[in-house]
Amino acid sequence: MKAELLYEGKAKKVYRSTIDPNKLVLAYKNDATAFNGKKKDTYVGKGRLNNEISSLIFPYLHECGIESHFIQKLSDTEQLVHETKIVPLEVVVRNVATGSITKRLGFKEKTLFSPPLVELFYKNDRLEDPLINDDHALLLTDIRTQELREIKVKALEINTALREFFQSIQLLLVDFKLEFGRLPDGRIVLSDEISPDTCRLWDIETNQKMDKDVFRLGTGNLILVYEQILQRLEARV
Amino acid sequence: MKAELLYEGKAKKVYRSTIDPNKLVLAYKNDATAFNGKKKDTYVGKGRLNNEISSLIFPYLHECGIESHFIQKLSDTEQLVHETKIVPLEVVVRNVATGSITKRLGFKEKTLFSPPLVELFYKNDRLEDPLINDDHALLLTDIRTQELREIKVKALEINTALREFFQSIQLLLVDFKLEFGRLPDGRIVLSDEISPDTCRLWDIETNQKMDKDVFRLGTGNLILVYEQILQRLEARV
Repeated sequence: MKAELLYEGKAKKVYRSTIDPNKLVLAYKNDATAFNGKKKDTYVGKGRLNNEISSLIFPYLHECGIESHFIQKLSDTEQLVHETKIVPLEVVVRNVATGSITKRLGFKEKTLFSPPLVELFYKNDRLEDPLINDDHALLLTDIRTQELREIKVKALEINTALREFFQSIQLLLVDFKLEFGRLPDGRIVLSDEISPDTCRLWDIETNQKMDKDVFRLGTGNLILVYEQILQRLEARV
Repeated sequence: MKAELLYEGKAKKVYRSTIDPNKLVLAYKNDATAFNGKKKDTYVGKGRLNNEISSLIFPYLHECGIESHFIQKLSDTEQLVHETKIVPLEVVVRNVATGSITKRLGFKEKTLFSPPLVELFYKNDRLEDPLINDDHALLLTDIRTQELREIKVKALEINTALREFFQSIQLLLVDFKLEFGRLPDGRIVLSDEISPDTCRLWDIETNQKMDKDVFRLGTGNLILVYEQILQRLEARV
């Protein structure tokens, strides 16, 4: 069902679908990267796990009224999505301070953000995805003021939905990164992936990190952790 | 007229006035610093020049309806100001892209920003004054949403007034940094200094840099340049 390779990112390859040229096939890779690509490794099974997990999350969000590019899972490592033109923004929502924000702005580890904090980063490898403000976002992308406002509202709605989702499997949603894309009809929808690669998840009972920080910080076996998230999700479903 | 030294910054010392304990004396120093204090030097006459120049700018802004902490010039290097509690924000207004923003976000040198771009930085030496967004500003300072909105509107009004002011002495106002402070009655007013230390100014005819970039980039004699700005201003007045 895959044809031309359109793009290869750090964690996924993007192909045009042979069956419907308006649709794309995302193939999840086994590569893990961190610190803007400075740390790299490969984990057999990672692509499958992220594909399985995100193929459970997108339909859940759809039930919550959140439209996305996701159509369906195609195979162990592939999913079919609507073609969108990615808005070059990483939209980060934080419920709890950890990681870069503690170093960058001096927030104490585990500070609670209530309301949750929304941050925008300019998706640009060469510039190392710098933090930007709203006015920068309007200059650096083709989105309009009203669309940016809607993206931020949507990000907070997704946060509310995902917090509940992960809480039901005993995980605290600490923070996460979203990307949005523009459909051919002009509407902007949730895009990219939602997985333990893009969310920080802490076990509610043990506080154990159950996400890519295991790889970033080198504190455990990424595959075992992602496998456990999938098991909990399958038990829930 | 000076008593207790309250604070010594990179470019100024702040004393409490002996005559009126609700007022402060700012004493401009001869020190020049750049790159978060990594480059340092001393220029005899710099303190006097910045005091003279800012003592012309604040009254001009007052005529334009912009309230500030400035009361009057006291001596060659000193001015009397109302005591304010400084809001730990650097409010930067950019009309033309140059300096850090070209490296940070990849804007081409001399890109025009229309409308002008407003950026907030968290005034914190240890963190090296990082760029922040509006939500960070509300978390990191005691200002309220409405006050932040007013600060940004005020910054753009000051930009309009200062562009005209500098244009009248053949200088293009490229960008500048403002600080605001809270008066004892709770109101927030323009504070700190406005001088060639805090503004980028390019000669309209020759494009020559007439500001602290002469020191930052090591391309000329800072004192000669600041002296020329003062001469042009005195000729105008």
